[in-house]
Amino acid sequence: MNMNRGWFIVFEGCDGSGKTTVSQGVYQNLIDKGYPVIYTREPGGIDIAEQIRKVILDPKNTEMDSRTEALLYAASRRQHLVQKVLPALNEHKIVICDRFLFSSLAYQGYARNIGVDEVLKINEFAIEGHMPDTTIFLDVLPEVGLSRISTRTFKDRLDQENMDFHQRVFDGYMLVNERFGQDIVKFDANRTPEEIINDITAYIEKLVK
Amino acid sequence: MNMNRGWFIVFEGCDGSGKTTVSQGVYQNLIDKGYPVIYTREPGGIDIAEQIRKVILDPKNTEMDSRTEALLYAASRRQHLVQKVLPALNEHKIVICDRFLFSSLAYQGYARNIGVDEVLKINEFAIEGHMPDTTIFLDVLPEVGLSRISTRTFKDRLDQENMDFHQRVFDGYMLVNERFGQDIVKFDANRTPEEIINDITAYIEKLVK
Repeated sequence: MNMNRGWFIVFEGCDGSGKTTVSQGVYQNLIDKGYPVIYTREPGGIDIAEQIRKVILDPKNTEMDSRTEALLYAASRRQHLVQKVLPALNEHKIVICDRFLFSSLAYQGYARNIGVDEVLKINEFAIEGHMPDTTIFLDVLPEVGLSRISTRTFKDRLDQENMDFHQRVFDGYMLVNERFGQDIVKFDANRTPEEIINDITAYIEKLVK
Repeated sequence: MNMNRGWFIVFEGCDGSGKTTVSQGVYQNLIDKGYPVIYTREPGGIDIAEQIRKVILDPKNTEMDSRTEALLYAASRRQHLVQKVLPALNEHKIVICDRFLFSSLAYQGYARNIGVDEVLKINEFAIEGHMPDTTIFLDVLPEVGLSRISTRTFKDRLDQENMDFHQRVFDGYMLVNERFGQDIVKFDANRTPEEIINDITAYIEKLVK
């Protein structure tokens, strides 16, 4: 295991890709096997990041400009990184994080038409080179993802977006995969959660040894 | 007068430079003379920008990272620009705005050590080329500014900063003046408010004719 610092492992995927179920299952597996590991996602219980997230997701904020939204995501990311991710890495922990930079590139950069390079620029400001050691992409067809989220009872502002938007997010991730493919590992997420979880757990155990 | 759009006029200066008194006095003069003019400052009553500002200025948020703060200022700026400044300019109005981009360069970029170029980058994302037609800098010695704000009863998180910080803001503005001098007009703010207000009103009348 890398003794200088821990491992920063990010899960990415479209809404309904099973990302949350799978990443939490992997986290539980690693805990059970005795690894030093934390599970987090932005805003991650960091008070300032929570306050920012509240502004982003408030369904009343219908006038929000897409660049404002992108800057707020970058601000929330920064605070969560500094207050939660980096301290855990410094304690040599494995950090399992649900979404990070590539979500912003796919959602704000591509799906909201700001431009991937533009959104990358403000996120470079936010993360100052602290890229994940590996990004796990849960690969599922957009129509499968959509059919999964349509059964959720609570819908926040983003879930209310139409199907076109979800298709665009999928396309955005495909673009991100082309650009940053060397840092991303794709897993077929059309299998049962148990299969995917065991597969990814094995991958991470090999990585951190 | 420029018939394509209005005039975007920004007032800048250190805390205690008399910026608010002077800019409001100039605004009143222009109103009295019949110009189509609005007065604003970020967040300017724009609900989303107000919510962001509340996060920035909450005295409880002592853990806020300086890059988080800079991203939040940029987000608030973006929303205020899109919802208030640009619509007024499109109606061919004069927009008097208390602080804009150069405040962030002096405060976050220089005084908080992030770097002027770094903070410029995220603000370029936020303003998309919508620079002021002119920036009016109220030039006052930092010790004069400090003695003025020490008499205020309410102190927000920024006012509580120590004297060193205020000196650094002053130095930051000097750097901004060197870099962007061609876009900035300095006015000696060690005179009476009335003298300064009349001086600047005359300057603006000449500009917009």
